[in-house]
Amino acid sequence: MSPRHRRPTALKEFLFGAPYYPEHWSEKDRELDADRMAAAGMNVVRMAEFAWDLMEPSPGKFDFSLFDQTIEKLGTRGIRTILCTPTAAPPRWLSLRHPDWMRVNRDGQPMVHGSRQHFCTNQPGFGKESVRITRAMAAHFDNNLHVIGWQTDNEFHCHINECYCPACRSAFQSWLKTKYGKIDALNSAWGTAFWAQTYRSFSEIPFPYPDRPTHANPGHQLDFNRFLSDSLTAFQSAQIKVLRKANPSWWISHNGIFDHIDHWKFAEGLDFYGVDVYPGFSFQPGRPEPDPVWSALKHQECRAASGNFVVFEQQGGAGGQRPYLLPTPRPGQMRLWAWQAVAHGADGVLHFRWRTCRFGAEIYWNGILDHDNIPRRRYQEFAAEGGEFRPLGPKLLGTTTLVEVGVLVEQDQDEAHGTMPLGQSGPWDQRKHIFRELQRRHLACGLVNAADSFEGLRILFLPGFVLMDEVLAEKLCAFVKQGGILVASARTATRNRHNGVFSITAPARLDACFGITVEEFGAHDDLRFKLGNTSVASDSYFEILQPVKKGGARVLASWEALADSAPHAAPGQPAFTVQKTGKGKAYYLGTHFGVENTLQVLEAILSQETITPLATAPDSVEVTCREGQGRRLLFLLNHSGGEQKVTKLPAGKNLLTAKATGASVNLPAYGVAVIEVRNR
Amino acid sequence: MSPRHRRPTALKEFLFGAPYYPEHWSEKDRELDADRMAAAGMNVVRMAEFAWDLMEPSPGKFDFSLFDQTIEKLGTRGIRTILCTPTAAPPRWLSLRHPDWMRVNRDGQPMVHGSRQHFCTNQPGFGKESVRITRAMAAHFDNNLHVIGWQTDNEFHCHINECYCPACRSAFQSWLKTKYGKIDALNSAWGTAFWAQTYRSFSEIPFPYPDRPTHANPGHQLDFNRFLSDSLTAFQSAQIKVLRKANPSWWISHNGIFDHIDHWKFAEGLDFYGVDVYPGFSFQPGRPEPDPVWSALKHQECRAASGNFVVFEQQGGAGGQRPYLLPTPRPGQMRLWAWQAVAHGADGVLHFRWRTCRFGAEIYWNGILDHDNIPRRRYQEFAAEGGEFRPLGPKLLGTTTLVEVGVLVEQDQDEAHGTMPLGQSGPWDQRKHIFRELQRRHLACGLVNAADSFEGLRILFLPGFVLMDEVLAEKLCAFVKQGGILVASARTATRNRHNGVFSITAPARLDACFGITVEEFGAHDDLRFKLGNTSVASDSYFEILQPVKKGGARVLASWEALADSAPHAAPGQPAFTVQKTGKGKAYYLGTHFGVENTLQVLEAILSQETITPLATAPDSVEVTCREGQGRRLLFLLNHSGGEQKVTKLPAGKNLLTAKATGASVNLPAYGVAVIEVRNR
Amino acid sequence: MSPRHRRPTALKEFLFGAPYYPEHWSEKDRELDADRMAAAGMNVVRMAEFAWDLMEPSPGKFDFSLFDQTIEKLGTRGIRTILCTPTAAPPRWLSLRHPDWMRVNRDGQPMVHGSRQHFCTNQPGFGKESVRITRAMAAHFDNNLHVIGWQTDNEFHCHINECYCPACRSAFQSWLKTKYGKIDALNSAWGTAFWAQTYRSFSEIPFPYPDRPTHANPGHQLDFNRFLSDSLTAFQSAQIKVLRKANPSWWISHNGIFDHIDHWKFAEGLDFYGVDVYPGFSFQPGRPEPDPVWSALKHQECRAASGNFVVFEQQGGAGGQRPYLLPTPRPGQMRLWAWQAVAHGADGVLHFRWRTCRFGAEIYWNGILDHDNIPRRRYQEFAAEGGEFRPLGPKLLGTTTLVEVGVLVEQDQDEAHGTMPLGQSGPWDQRKHIFRELQRRHLACGLVNAADSFEGLRILFLPGFVLMDEVLAEKLCAFVKQGGILVASARTATRNRHNGVFSITAPARLDACFGITVEEFGAHDDLRFKLGNTSVASDSYFEILQPVKKGGARVLASWEALADSAPHAAPGQPAFTVQKTGKGKAYYLGTHFGVENTLQVLEAILSQETITPLATAPDSVEVTCREGQGRRLLFLLNHSGGEQKVTKLPAGKNLLTAKATGASVNLPAYGVAVIEVRNR
Repeated sequence: MSPRHRRPTALKEFLFGAPYYPEHWSEKDRELDADRMAAAGMNVVRMAEFAWDLMEPSPGKFDFSLFDQTIEKLGTRGIRTILCTPTAAPPRWLSLRHPDWMRVNRDGQPMVHGSRQHFCTNQPGFGKESVRITRAMAAHFDNNLHVIGWQTDNEFHCHINECYCPACRSAFQSWLKTKYGKIDALNSAWGTAFWAQTYRSFSEIPFPYPDRPTHANPGHQLDFNRFLSDSLTAFQSAQIKVLRKANPSWWISHNGIFDHIDHWKFAEGLDFYGVDVYPGFSFQPGRPEPDPVWSALKHQECRAASGNFVVFEQQGGAGGQRPYLLPTPRPGQMRLWAWQAVAHGADGVLHFRWRTCRFGAEIYWNGILDHDNIPRRRYQEFAAEGGEFRPLGPKLLGTTTLVEVGVLVEQDQDEAHGTMPLGQSGPWDQRKHIFRELQRRHLACGLVNAADSFEGLRILFLPGFVLMDEVLAEKLCAFVKQGGILVASARTATRNRHNGVFSITAPARLDACFGITVEEFGAHDDLRFKLGNTSVASDSYFEILQPVKKGGARVLASWEALADSAPHAAPGQPAFTVQKTGKGKAYYLGTHFGVENTLQVLEAILSQETITPLATAPDSVEVTCREGQGRRLLFLLNHSGGEQKVTKLPAGKNLLTAKATGASVNLPAYGVAVIEVRNR
Repeated sequence: MSPRHRRPTALKEFLFGAPYYPEHWSEKDRELDADRMAAAGMNVVRMAEFAWDLMEPSPGKFDFSLFDQTIEKLGTRGIRTILCTPTAAPPRWLSLRHPDWMRVNRDGQPMVHGSRQHFCTNQPGFGKESVRITRAMAAHFDNNLHVIGWQTDNEFHCHINECYCPACRSAFQSWLKTKYGKIDALNSAWGTAFWAQTYRSFSEIPFPYPDRPTHANPGHQLDFNRFLSDSLTAFQSAQIKVLRKANPSWWISHNGIFDHIDHWKFAEGLDFYGVDVYPGFSFQPGRPEPDPVWSALKHQECRAASGNFVVFEQQGGAGGQRPYLLPTPRPGQMRLWAWQAVAHGADGVLHFRWRTCRFGAEIYWNGILDHDNIPRRRYQEFAAEGGEFRPLGPKLLGTTTLVEVGVLVEQDQDEAHGTMPLGQSGPWDQRKHIFRELQRRHLACGLVNAADSFEGLRILFLPGFVLMDEVLAEKLCAFVKQGGILVASARTATRNRHNGVFSITAPARLDACFGITVEEFGAHDDLRFKLGNTSVASDSYFEILQPVKKGGARVLASWEALADSAPHAAPGQPAFTVQKTGKGKAYYLGTHFGVENTLQVLEAILSQETITPLATAPDSVEVTCREGQGRRLLFLLNHSGGEQKVTKLPAGKNLLTAKATGASVNLPAYGVAVIEVRNR
Repeated sequence: MSPRHRRPTALKEFLFGAPYYPEHWSEKDRELDADRMAAAGMNVVRMAEFAWDLMEPSPGKFDFSLFDQTIEKLGTRGIRTILCTPTAAPPRWLSLRHPDWMRVNRDGQPMVHGSRQHFCTNQPGFGKESVRITRAMAAHFDNNLHVIGWQTDNEFHCHINECYCPACRSAFQSWLKTKYGKIDALNSAWGTAFWAQTYRSFSEIPFPYPDRPTHANPGHQLDFNRFLSDSLTAFQSAQIKVLRKANPSWWISHNGIFDHIDHWKFAEGLDFYGVDVYPGFSFQPGRPEPDPVWSALKHQECRAASGNFVVFEQQGGAGGQRPYLLPTPRPGQMRLWAWQAVAHGADGVLHFRWRTCRFGAEIYWNGILDHDNIPRRRYQEFAAEGGEFRPLGPKLLGTTTLVEVGVLVEQDQDEAHGTMPLGQSGPWDQRKHIFRELQRRHLACGLVNAADSFEGLRILFLPGFVLMDEVLAEKLCAFVKQGGILVASARTATRNRHNGVFSITAPARLDACFGITVEEFGAHDDLRFKLGNTSVASDSYFEILQPVKKGGARVLASWEALADSAPHAAPGQPAFTVQKTGKGKAYYLGTHFGVENTLQVLEAILSQETITPLATAPDSVEVTCREGQGRRLLFLLNHSGGEQKVTKLPAGKNLLTAKATGASVNLPAYGVAVIEVRNR
């Protein structure tokens, strides 16, 4: 099996366009829109995700005429349509009929009509409504050749990702029954002997609350989080089934990426996954530029789940809600961000949105066109993008992003960390620190799901993998034996899949692979370890490592004495080790990857391994590579506001200028180059 | 029509006194109180706002004897009584009979008996109770000549200014029906096509919540806020009607000023408005003096709503509740604050309160007399005040505060900002910055309501007026054409009265007046603009202005390049403009008035206009002028703890010393002078 | 009556051991455990507090076999058992049968099954269940000679210490009826004339809420807090009664110490009190060592309530829950903390817990043994402790901690402060500051309950005693007259026991004793007073003191002028006074004891009094003394990570080394010495 993360989409055209809301505009506006869209090089719009009340103004009475007309109007200009199931915003008549179908938050408050995502997707009745409206849309648009694919719902779990309604309690109990079969198995798995929580039947299981009055069982909590994902996936599957049956040529996707969803399993039923990316959310006070690693990881999370993907919403202007206003993209940034998506595996980019709405909760989520419908700077930049993607699309399709250094990701690890964070850096934090340093070195790096094939990977980071099972342990050991470099950090393999702690010493089932065991651990802000001549900070945590007796690991760094030379268990004890196993090596770091140590630790590891950067470039320049169909494309992305130089490049052609390029390329502020490498 | 903000009260005597609670004290205490009140120069007390349970100990059985006796006792010493309707604290028997009449907060929690303001003023049954008790009091005190006027309820909307009970939902739906007539009009006004929120009848309309699970429609939210004010005003009107009918010679007022009340409309039914002012609330950590601009604006908000006013509660000692303790006024400050109220239009001042209560939730809201009933420093200062107001009262009555520079205020603008603050400075913040700078220049300045007459104003600031309509736009344009100076800041006239964004370019309907349109906007912390030779900071926001083609504006300042010279849309583009229109001028500033730019921008504007300060004085000295009845009184208020000198004064007489004054006056720490100008 | 705080326990053996949970482990584990416990010198375990569901798996069917076997297994190795009533975690079948028996928090949310402490101890039905299970256990273990005593429940009020369920409302109303008899007495005591809160019967009394919508009556609030304590005490008493009846030779205790419990009254029915101490909770960011004063006060609170005590849970490793991870004890610290407990009066120490649990909410509350059951550093240290306590136990029993300088404590004062904190330092803060300075001087100091005998005390601090009554006032005055030194701070004796303010001037009933009255008070950050030549900071508060005319106090310090010389009421007025009364002296400080003034004020007082330190030692060394049975033991505790020298010691023998000691002793890092003084 080739890795899922290297899977291209089956799209026939690179998608370029915008979400569009014909229901907000007059007929005259829509006429002009079609012409301007075509002029901007758009080949796709996304529509209808918030139009249920328009399509079914009263129960059972459908009216699709607005979308028929709009799809036709756009189709004749070569612009295809992505339709959406409209279940994120059911009509008022449905919430009035079924006030008990609303989601209930952790405080026991039911959601209300008046914004969106208020319905509980585990309410059986709402599940039927979801299938009914999907079926009605599918039947109606069945033969419309301009409709090429579907987005299910919209941004599942964006505003609220839990529900504590009675239907969810029943569904959770059923889910547990399916998983455990007998209640004793559950009691044993969760360890309900603790705090006298033994259950005698599945119908006795309550919701886990963190504060009613105190902490829930972590096995209980972890299973609930998994249930949230599985039940949502089932809700989506019912829609997918209807659509597949109606027209097998349609592709189906969804625009993530939000919490409490196991993206690997959730994306399985989709043709490919999608993601909404607003780099403005990565702004920090006093830091006037967005963080490109933040958006790179958004794309990578999507890629790791399903391979090539589509960005359904890329920031198209200043964006704001009640409490905040994201900065408007500077000249060149919208294009830069679109190409960043492509560099990480996007086979399509839609900028949110065609025109800023004049009413409703998003009057300041700005579109390509302003409220007054006058095309300005952002429209010009958008149209220029369109002019680039149209000719280059065929070159991009079929290629996928090269990954030689993988950073392992698994939803279960993030969920497990969330049940017991202890104030420590979790998988997400560590992925970010590692990815930032790998990108700074311009290595071919990417997130890889633990369930995916590790084929083609040379180095694999394992950040925050507290949960471990035999299958994964063997897979990791095999990776090392076959020549891979594995790098783990503190707390790896300390808990089983029920979120209980192993009875054997950590890292359980991986001690032979790493050649160490963990003898003691604790939090301590001031501890440091000595790496070569450098004193490196721990990330608020330490483990005392002990090489296992036979074939033990080599100690690369030990904990240093405290500045005040007070007694402490750690000083003098191993903090960072490596062991050769088979053809590979396994590194173990006895603290988390943090802001202050990741650079030094990676330096120490990479200096030992021969892995070639894609190019030499300043920190602010991102470099990735897409390969496939006999092509190799290098993406150079300058995230800084000044000119930057990239060197040690292979000879090739910059597809954006159609000019030959040599070993070095100068990128203007926010500039992009796509080098097709010669003589591959 | 002469401006409402220049309207004097019809009071026959300047009021000086204190709120008094005979129900808290023994008969012996009350006897001594009467003598001490008279000795301190009091001519009025306020009573009975929290005595419903005393006056009607069981349903329908009334006992007014305590107040009868107290009113009589005080009356014989020349001290009149202001009575209050007691609806802020209904008796326990009423809350027990009607537990469903309690207010319900946004989280769905009903209020309880045990503090105050727990009843919902929109409960029809409570409305009837309110009229019933008001009628009973009015009937009883009808012929009591010592009762001169009434305060409705007490500090409406102080603790809780919203309600989410079923009665409020019905009332809100009715209010909407009255406003829109047909549901389609509402759908169109709010833009319910956004997020599928279309309503089919008014009975379908829910409450707007900001987080169930996400942001409500801003039109929905704005109308709800207006409803809160209108329905409260109706509750008060029913009380007013009863009182007017009972005794037309009574005046009626209320002690504000709190949120979600349109003070202009709310005060319409009153003879004059009132305000409670505790300067201690303006203390900031590390700043040992209160902010006089904070209290000046409290008075000004009241004045802008109804002209001359009464301060029903002026801080009379250290004041505290559970979480805080406001500092005690320093020697001289109580008097200073009382005169500040007069300087801004007060025709009466009551210090809160006669004596600190020994029980209940306000045991640390200190009064003039301490818990132990021993007259000390604050009583002496209070009595000295009484000695000043008694002879000067007749001089003050009939005069009103002069305003040449107006700062426009309108409740709708504050409410609209609250629905969509975006983390930006709102009308209130900007009013404060502008007012501070105007006072620092000792100009005759004041808040002016947008519904008021602009007669007499030479300059008018328009801070945060995001909402605009034709009537106001024409009124503003007319002001400029007739010679006025109009000054607006960012986001002016961007939304219609339904809180939706205009389809025409901002500033909508005012583009001709200002001679510019807004081409782009966004948040950006580091942007600056060049004003003359000075680089001035934006207030976290920028607009790119474009002079309209014909008769366009003159550019006074443009945006500067960023420090790191990264690309940005703003640099080189206009940031601050002026246009001559008719006999006047219209300035437009492409950012908010903020802490760091208001001084420079006002300097630039005022240096172009000939407007004479009332005097020359240091920053810490406030100067205002009251005129009328052929008199001109200058108020000099030294808010600093050191001596200060005021110069460039017209010759006159200091009414507080009865001595003639020349061009300069020295004020001791916290000192006050009231100069009656000669030869007016 | 000799002071309760000097009362030894009647324990026959010094207890050393750990809480143990056989229900979490296999039979094989348990077998090995018994041997290892014996090897570590343990003589006691605590068991069964969370095992109700195991002991009564279905209603009425009991199974105690696991505990029978475990008790026997341990007993044969000389390890006795402390049993617990298991009412902190009732079984699921009980919560299912009675979902309405759950506690309800202030927001109205009921607790749920899934953690612990979810049941309301005021539900009559649950009270019966509590007695029933206690009776069943008592009957079963009645004749078991290995069972030596009981702990009631577990950490009452740890997670939630309030309840707002209907049963609590009824119980509160009954409690009030018992207290006041007639409703008029309550109305008068609380002052319900304020805000029209008069009640006509006890059944009308609601819960006091701080925010529905605003502050409750402080008398109402204080009585509710007392009710919380009294009703909990009654719940415990019912269990005690059952146990006493079953086997009068059992001792009974409880492991505190948590909020809303009047420990003096609560401990009255116990043989002695207990406490759980996790010094890790006293860590502060940037401070890598725990604060020994924090844990000293934990012990002292327990000692003040009941004399000598047992630590049922002393931190045994790193400990963490969802949001945090307490640092692991450094080498030597566990022993140091155990000896600190003894130094403050412990007659037994159990380290929490035998082995870290592998499942449930406390998987990171680490025990002596790690998850993998391998004995490591902490087990070795624990066993070494065991080796010390076994021989020394007999020397410790019968002695109690000497107190010459008392710091007065009374639950009512803390509760009263909580009802009206005003942002000021309360009793707890001031106790901490005073105790820290007393310990820094190595005086024989301790907390003393206001209800206790003052016999043997030479100096008495009275921090934050806002409430005062005649009995306490007379007791304090008598203490002074008989030669004691009394030291009070701001706000002393300002309110009566109903939490209302006195009608007489503060300090009410103590003005003669201190020789001053308080003329004015307020908050002010920058005020300072002059003590000798030193300018000392107020603690955000000032009082202006006035010596009473006859026999007035001597002024030790007066308020200074403000830095900016602005007018203020305080400068030049007395801030700190002393008066000789009878044979003693009474000091009054017109501000709170704070971080910045306690050192200077104590210096000024102690320099006047002849009170000898126990030794001379650096700040980081704690020194206490236990006396009794003709023995005098000095405890020297080095809380620092470096060696420290203690001097001016009497000659004696270090019981830990069995070597003679002279005037000085060197303590290694975290070292301990126990000197038995010769020639006493």
